[in-house]
Amino acid sequence: RKKVQIYQYVFLKWTLALLIGLSTGLVGFFNNLAVENIAGFKLLLTTNLMMKHRYFLGFATYAGVNAFLAICAGALCAFIAPAAAGSGIPEVKAYLNGVDAHSILAPSTLFVKIFGSVLGVSAGFVVGKEGPMVHTGACIANLLGQGGSRKYHLTWKWLKYFKNDRDRRDLITCGAAAGVTAAFRAPVGGVLFALEEAATWWRSALLWRTFFTSAVVAVVLRAFIQFCRSGKCGLFGQGGLIMFDISSAVPVYNTKDLLAVILIGVLGGVLGSLYNYLVDKVLRTYSIINERSRSFKVLLVLCISLLTSCCAYGLPWFATCTPCPTGITEECPVKNGSGNYKIFQCPPGHYNDLASLFLNTNDDTIRNLFSPKNDHEFYLSTLFVFFVAIYFLGIVTYGIAVPSGLFIPVILAGASYGRLVGRLLGSISSLDVGLFAVLGAASFLGGTMRMTVSLCVILLELTNDLLMLPLTMFVLLISKTVADCFNKGVYDQIVKMKGLPFLEAHAEPYMRHLVAGDVCSGPLISFSGVEKVGNIVHALKYTRHNGFPVIDEPPFSDSPELCGIVLRSHLLVLLKGKNFSKHRALTGSQILRRFHAFDFAKPGSGKGPKIEDVDISEEEMEMFVDLHPITNTSPYTVVETMSLAKAAVLFHALGLRHLCVVPKTPGRPPIVGILTRHDFMHEHILGLYPHMAHHK
Amino acid sequence: RKKVQIYQYVFLKWTLALLIGLSTGLVGFFNNLAVENIAGFKLLLTTNLMMKHRYFLGFATYAGVNAFLAICAGALCAFIAPAAAGSGIPEVKAYLNGVDAHSILAPSTLFVKIFGSVLGVSAGFVVGKEGPMVHTGACIANLLGQGGSRKYHLTWKWLKYFKNDRDRRDLITCGAAAGVTAAFRAPVGGVLFALEEAATWWRSALLWRTFFTSAVVAVVLRAFIQFCRSGKCGLFGQGGLIMFDISSAVPVYNTKDLLAVILIGVLGGVLGSLYNYLVDKVLRTYSIINERSRSFKVLLVLCISLLTSCCAYGLPWFATCTPCPTGITEECPVKNGSGNYKIFQCPPGHYNDLASLFLNTNDDTIRNLFSPKNDHEFYLSTLFVFFVAIYFLGIVTYGIAVPSGLFIPVILAGASYGRLVGRLLGSISSLDVGLFAVLGAASFLGGTMRMTVSLCVILLELTNDLLMLPLTMFVLLISKTVADCFNKGVYDQIVKMKGLPFLEAHAEPYMRHLVAGDVCSGPLISFSGVEKVGNIVHALKYTRHNGFPVIDEPPFSDSPELCGIVLRSHLLVLLKGKNFSKHRALTGSQILRRFHAFDFAKPGSGKGPKIEDVDISEEEMEMFVDLHPITNTSPYTVVETMSLAKAAVLFHALGLRHLCVVPKTPGRPPIVGILTRHDFMHEHILGLYPHMAHHK
Repeated sequence: RKKVQIYQYVFLKWTLALLIGLSTGLVGFFNNLAVENIAGFKLLLTTNLMMKHRYFLGFATYAGVNAFLAICAGALCAFIAPAAAGSGIPEVKAYLNGVDAHSILAPSTLFVKIFGSVLGVSAGFVVGKEGPMVHTGACIANLLGQGGSRKYHLTWKWLKYFKNDRDRRDLITCGAAAGVTAAFRAPVGGVLFALEEAATWWRSALLWRTFFTSAVVAVVLRAFIQFCRSGKCGLFGQGGLIMFDISSAVPVYNTKDLLAVILIGVLGGVLGSLYNYLVDKVLRTYSIINERSRSFKVLLVLCISLLTSCCAYGLPWFATCTPCPTGITEECPVKNGSGNYKIFQCPPGHYNDLASLFLNTNDDTIRNLFSPKNDHEFYLSTLFVFFVAIYFLGIVTYGIAVPSGLFIPVILAGASYGRLVGRLLGSISSLDVGLFAVLGAASFLGGTMRMTVSLCVILLELTNDLLMLPLTMFVLLISKTVADCFNKGVYDQIVKMKGLPFLEAHAEPYMRHLVAGDVCSGPLISFSGVEKVGNIVHALKYTRHNGFPVIDEPPFSDSPELCGIVLRSHLLVLLKGKNFSKHRALTGSQILRRFHAFDFAKPGSGKGPKIEDVDISEEEMEMFVDLHPITNTSPYTVVETMSLAKAAVLFHALGLRHLCVVPKTPGRPPIVGILTRHDFMHEHILGLYPHMAHHK
Repeated sequence: RKKVQIYQYVFLKWTLALLIGLSTGLVGFFNNLAVENIAGFKLLLTTNLMMKHRYFLGFATYAGVNAFLAICAGALCAFIAPAAAGSGIPEVKAYLNGVDAHSILAPSTLFVKIFGSVLGVSAGFVVGKEGPMVHTGACIANLLGQGGSRKYHLTWKWLKYFKNDRDRRDLITCGAAAGVTAAFRAPVGGVLFALEEAATWWRSALLWRTFFTSAVVAVVLRAFIQFCRSGKCGLFGQGGLIMFDISSAVPVYNTKDLLAVILIGVLGGVLGSLYNYLVDKVLRTYSIINERSRSFKVLLVLCISLLTSCCAYGLPWFATCTPCPTGITEECPVKNGSGNYKIFQCPPGHYNDLASLFLNTNDDTIRNLFSPKNDHEFYLSTLFVFFVAIYFLGIVTYGIAVPSGLFIPVILAGASYGRLVGRLLGSISSLDVGLFAVLGAASFLGGTMRMTVSLCVILLELTNDLLMLPLTMFVLLISKTVADCFNKGVYDQIVKMKGLPFLEAHAEPYMRHLVAGDVCSGPLISFSGVEKVGNIVHALKYTRHNGFPVIDEPPFSDSPELCGIVLRSHLLVLLKGKNFSKHRALTGSQILRRFHAFDFAKPGSGKGPKIEDVDISEEEMEMFVDLHPITNTSPYTVVETMSLAKAAVLFHALGLRHLCVVPKTPGRPPIVGILTRHDFMHEHILGLYPHMAHHK
């Protein structure tokens, strides 16, 4: 590349990072603003009706609004972009692993993800906006990187530099980090999340770009929140973007407290892995329902919405009324709707503590649970009921056709569990119940998601308390270790359940007992250096391979030898160009003159040419085309006797799509087969060699 | 491996991480305690003499103590462990890149690094303890991972699991992170430092272990500081471990301030790259002196020590006395030695602002420069003189035979430069001068070290101010970009100057014009599958290759084919075993029975057997040995026509030491050559193909 092109590229890279940060920050703020206003208005309406003792109408309003919002969200998801359902983190993770699944990052997905998430969270579901924000960030990055649509001639010339796998993956990593930052206002946590959970290949150059994007998001959010302080944002309070301040509780701890912390960690790990197990079961059940028809999807959403409304409105009736505490700055019981001490059915001067948890936005509930000092704000029974309800609501909610993050349900359940344990151990441990709630949330997060450093830093940035760090780490370490004994992390589970061919970084032990030649599948279709057009068209039509080996044969070489590998997409471009010759001859230099390097650039998702679009006449079928100019002449190769484990390491470390297997002894055809991602999947290998399952 | 072995391994892994954390924390605390007490006592002595107006005796004491400490440090370095001189970060970086240089991490280096650093910093040199702490952490990790000494039969059986490159590198990465944490009390910054600057290969599993180690260090330091609050640690004040609190200055900024910040960043980048340039020149000059003899090394240390003493004691005489400010809690001027407002030659009620900077420990000086609000504490001329003096003292000090970190000199120079600019722009910008000092430090750090995220987080953790984050990032981004136009980062420069064969992650553009076969150097020495002992001994004696290809020939195969690659160290173990046979026959199974897998494990640094130690009789020389059992039968290979750039990517990504180059066309010998790390060095390639320099 020329120097000016390098500058263009670098400039564009940073501009795109800036744009991703700006857009994600904007969307993150819009998301919060919308949720706070819609949910706040809903709660205000309900509370006002209850104040007038019109309890049934109150419930009808509450459940009705919830159901309406839920149906909107479900319909958006079911009819426009089914890929937008769920968290989105597993999909982003798979994309960054190299799975090019269609529509994961399409513009329609982005649209539904944003609005579906707003509607879903406002509808009172036990879902978060964190996973969807990550997906949104990735979608934005993908959209910007594609640079408009080729269909509408909006492609910008400069963006051609980003029409390749690596640059696109880099952008999407930035987008994922921006998403976490926008969700939690945690720039460093966002970077570490992208590093630890999302990205498969990581270069240190990417670190800085990701950090820059995250910082832009943080600045944008900060500016908007500053703007909203003046009260111009309706019901958008300080609640909008979670940021809990627990600094008033000074953590001083002794051995007894550490025992309590260990207990929290172990139990949290067990409950977390149970959560994963149940989510998996529920997802499998739901997928049967969801596959039936789109209306069934919406119906399921409606059912869960009604169930949630009943829980949220019904359970507080069983709670006892508590007299308002004295000496607090907050209003109690709240008169005008959106405060924390809900009066519910209680007499004046009292509040219903369970309603304070249920009839609030999720962010406010978490803040209540994390609040320090006030030990007796919540009854034991309240915490227990809330914990059980949220734990199971969270499980049954994930998997419905609504963009639904897992962070918030897990934090909610974990925080109530932690506060419950803190209350129970109150006589033994001197730690604050608010701290117990934070540790409980950490233990659940560790138990379900199995991330560590990023969770730790996110919690650090959320609670703004450096002194908690060692305890949080300790809890995360224990709960992750305990949970790892039972099953895999929830995101890995979902990736597997969705059947995405995710490539693990570690080769399984049983792979050492196999060699690369053992797993090459299917009949190999190879081309000559100068091949008949008809053969190529036939191969492209009747196989779904993406890479074909090219073998040079006499007269172009002394003996058959591997020339390289040619990609389906490049073959299609070549065929479209119709630069054929009547005779078997090398016409490479002519062909190169006809094409520009960027004609072969990777197109946007799902927009590549198809073999059906290429129109080749009978006469042309008999002609020849020189494949040398489009052949990658130095593909990575392994000898057929190389252990499969080493081949897998090579395949993963270099992020390959095709790996040529060559014979060990001379005198045989110069290529044995091609290994692709699917050949390394456990299902495939164990299907070929079932007895290997013992070695696992 | 059996299940129990896996548990042993995992248990040990975490135990070692814990031990590394504990030891590094302990050493970090000891280091600070010693420095604060020695330097504090020295300053106390000097100040007391000055109070009695015995100025010349004061200078003699000051310079004498400095010279004594300096000679001790220099002698330790020169006579016991020359590898301990300098920062140590470049060496650790090279080790983690796969450079197995002797004595980098030896126990003697550890010893000298700890005590040399204490003496050097106490001696008033413009050096930091940060680089040495990183090196110390890495040495501790290496020592623990080796598990005692085989010589004294102290090897612990379990530690055999760590006798390989990868696990040892992992431990040392943890150690490096622990070192940064111990130096700055910045656990997250430490992890990111290890990730961004130190490690070449990074796995996400390592992230958590590194973080754990850092957290242990943080906890240990915290416990000790808590202990010292009670005053039992002599002169160890709050100064010991840098942690600056600038939170009293609220950063509110507008466009004008941003322009000032850009100015700081650009200038900082230029000055930072100039710093690198000068350090490089000075290092080259010094290396001529240092190579002469050990006494010359000590002499050089003494000269620099006297120069530093003269500057520190002499320059304040030119400063004007300032009346003490009113309304401060600190004592002014200090009566009893170790405070900030030094009286020096001034009348009572006044202080000498330049002496406050010079006659203090480095940590205290930085705290003074970062201190907010007090705009007029330092005169413009004071700041200017201090900046120039420290900038050049820092440059001439690095490279003498004393463990010397680069962080502190750069932060000192940067902070004084920042504060100077802040004072100059005081009328335009509304930012606090303390913030300017922090930004100045950031710009210098970015300009010299070119790290970004880790520096940002370290500064964040040092200054404990989340709100500064965007400005710091902005400055770092600008200064790094500006400085990158001129030269490389200081650590990369030093690595190159030391001639360590560091493998870059990126292939250079000109490598695309070469193929793998072009750079294979030297005559290839290969063995047969069953080889004569004499041939092996000869090859080991007269070449320095570490890997030899093994070629199977008839009658063991139909035609010559590549069997694999065998390592020098394994051959030596095999020869020592003396399992030879009279005839050319496969005796592999017998040999395997005689050896245990761990006999082939990688020994501690520099302790492997040598060919001279192996005693082979004339008769045995004529016998045969079967190499198959110790041959790695599936080495990674590339075809000779593969572009060198792709081969380099493969070599780097998999962290190889040997890469076999095989011929493209059959009928030739089955191996063309072996590529090693040295074959990918620019010097080697450009030596072979000088015209390629144009493509660079």
